[in-house]
Amino acid sequence: MGLSIKEIQAPIAKEMDAFEGKFRSFMKTKVMLLDTIMNYIVQRKGKQLRPMFVFLTAGLCGEINEKTHRGAALIELLHTATLVHDDVVDESNYRRGFFSVNAVWKNKIAVLVGDYLLSKGLLLSIDNNDFDILKIVSTAVREISEGELLQIEKARKLDITEEVYFEIIRQKTATLIAACCGAGVSSVGADAETVEKARIFGEKIGIAFQIKDDLFDYGDAEIGKPLGIDIKEKKMTLPLIFALNQSDWSTKRKIINIIKNESEKPNKVEEVIDFVKKSGGLQYANKVMERYKQESLDILSTFSDSIYRTSLAGLVEYTINRVK
Amino acid sequence: MGLSIKEIQAPIAKEMDAFEGKFRSFMKTKVMLLDTIMNYIVQRKGKQLRPMFVFLTAGLCGEINEKTHRGAALIELLHTATLVHDDVVDESNYRRGFFSVNAVWKNKIAVLVGDYLLSKGLLLSIDNNDFDILKIVSTAVREISEGELLQIEKARKLDITEEVYFEIIRQKTATLIAACCGAGVSSVGADAETVEKARIFGEKIGIAFQIKDDLFDYGDAEIGKPLGIDIKEKKMTLPLIFALNQSDWSTKRKIINIIKNESEKPNKVEEVIDFVKKSGGLQYANKVMERYKQESLDILSTFSDSIYRTSLAGLVEYTINRVK
Repeated sequence: MGLSIKEIQAPIAKEMDAFEGKFRSFMKTKVMLLDTIMNYIVQRKGKQLRPMFVFLTAGLCGEINEKTHRGAALIELLHTATLVHDDVVDESNYRRGFFSVNAVWKNKIAVLVGDYLLSKGLLLSIDNNDFDILKIVSTAVREISEGELLQIEKARKLDITEEVYFEIIRQKTATLIAACCGAGVSSVGADAETVEKARIFGEKIGIAFQIKDDLFDYGDAEIGKPLGIDIKEKKMTLPLIFALNQSDWSTKRKIINIIKNESEKPNKVEEVIDFVKKSGGLQYANKVMERYKQESLDILSTFSDSIYRTSLAGLVEYTINRVK
Repeated sequence: MGLSIKEIQAPIAKEMDAFEGKFRSFMKTKVMLLDTIMNYIVQRKGKQLRPMFVFLTAGLCGEINEKTHRGAALIELLHTATLVHDDVVDESNYRRGFFSVNAVWKNKIAVLVGDYLLSKGLLLSIDNNDFDILKIVSTAVREISEGELLQIEKARKLDITEEVYFEIIRQKTATLIAACCGAGVSSVGADAETVEKARIFGEKIGIAFQIKDDLFDYGDAEIGKPLGIDIKEKKMTLPLIFALNQSDWSTKRKIINIIKNESEKPNKVEEVIDFVKKSGGLQYANKVMERYKQESLDILSTFSDSIYRTSLAGLVEYTINRVK
């Protein structure tokens, strides 16, 4: 079903290879402790979805160049900075199966390393006059932190409308993929209108991506058993919000009460999962996700055809059909 | 002795007044939780030394304008961001006599608020094409986090040379005052050479400022009793480094052993303080501080005479002679 990551990457395989070396050299520093941490971070890198979006959208509109590489590096530096900070924020001791930076080196170092990465990325752009990309990315940083804070503010009340939900995931998750696409297209000299179109294309995928993540919590993957982690953490996701809005007042009160006071008990989490499933929350979230996917593909189809466009369509499908 | 803060501020009193309102409006946000925290931060503002340096150096070389205000706001946003992060880093629950943001709202929120402030400041510069100021300030962000990490790395070994000490305080403390002076001068259109000269002027004051801080720990102020907080925190400051370098091997080993293993005991801290005083550590640090002060005044004298220059000379003296 759809293209594999390898097939998607084919048109930019050489670029992705070169990028790894360049990224390492961007991160070089004379402070030994920092260098050790940087190496540790580079070694645990993930699927590299973000650089892929940057390079593929750049190819879509022009010739991939050094500015494209710097754009991808800035976003990776920023993303790594937010992950390092997130580990502090979530008090999480693991990341991709390894200990997180804050678990190994303590919170204080994690905060500083995040700040350092961020400023390194900024300087890379400033030194090369990549101000268009800088603006796209700084806007993303502001939106991401604002989105996280909005989520924290709303989480206390456990009363989130769909509207607030979409605002949170747009800011928290979708903004960064949108920035990847905007930066990619901007790096090859596209006009402001095209940059904005690419940004919105990325935003739609980002929203679909997050809804997919929400669904995983209910064991929607082929392999998976329900996890209920979001419920334990009192996170209001789309399937749950829909289910609550469908139910009568007393059921709603009962479910909210479980989430508030009994989300530590496995059988109670199970009860919430059953409730969401019976209320059609999963079908609804799936339908919304498909709609966002289709909207992103519609935007993509307005760009002229190329191997990059085919790969991007494959990447959209991959985002929705991934099993992890 | 010297000018008072009020006298120093006289040439820029109107600007400083206007700045407060502008800064508040720059910080506005639609996320309520964030707005509450911002108000909390603005209310506890300090002596505003940084904006003063920006405005006075701008006046030194030209006409204070909107760009000067944006430069001062960027630096205040950045400085506030680092303070909020520092409170996480130091696990400190107080700041200027109030609870710190992380004590009231927890670490996770403090980290996010810091990121948010930083990105807000960046966007203010980017939206107005203040790329010269942006570069000065981003360089400062990188140096500050690098300096903090260098200090952490070195602190583990308790074996710091004067050279490393100066590198740490240059990066940690002096860089931000240097950035204030560079940004101020750059905001009125000075050439690159003048900007660099202003930056170095600020760096010298910054170093003198930090040495003064080190001396406070030994009760060098008119009122004060020795504090020994740096010793308790195993921070290697200039008076101590000098004293250790003056002493024989066995004394050095004894003092380092106290700092490493017994710095919780008040009488042991007292012993280190006595050791530093007897070794002439305070006189030495005072002498070095005076040298940096003189170097900064020498640079200042190469700018043409004005009320701003007089105020800046007063500000340099104030930095060295302050009692808190």
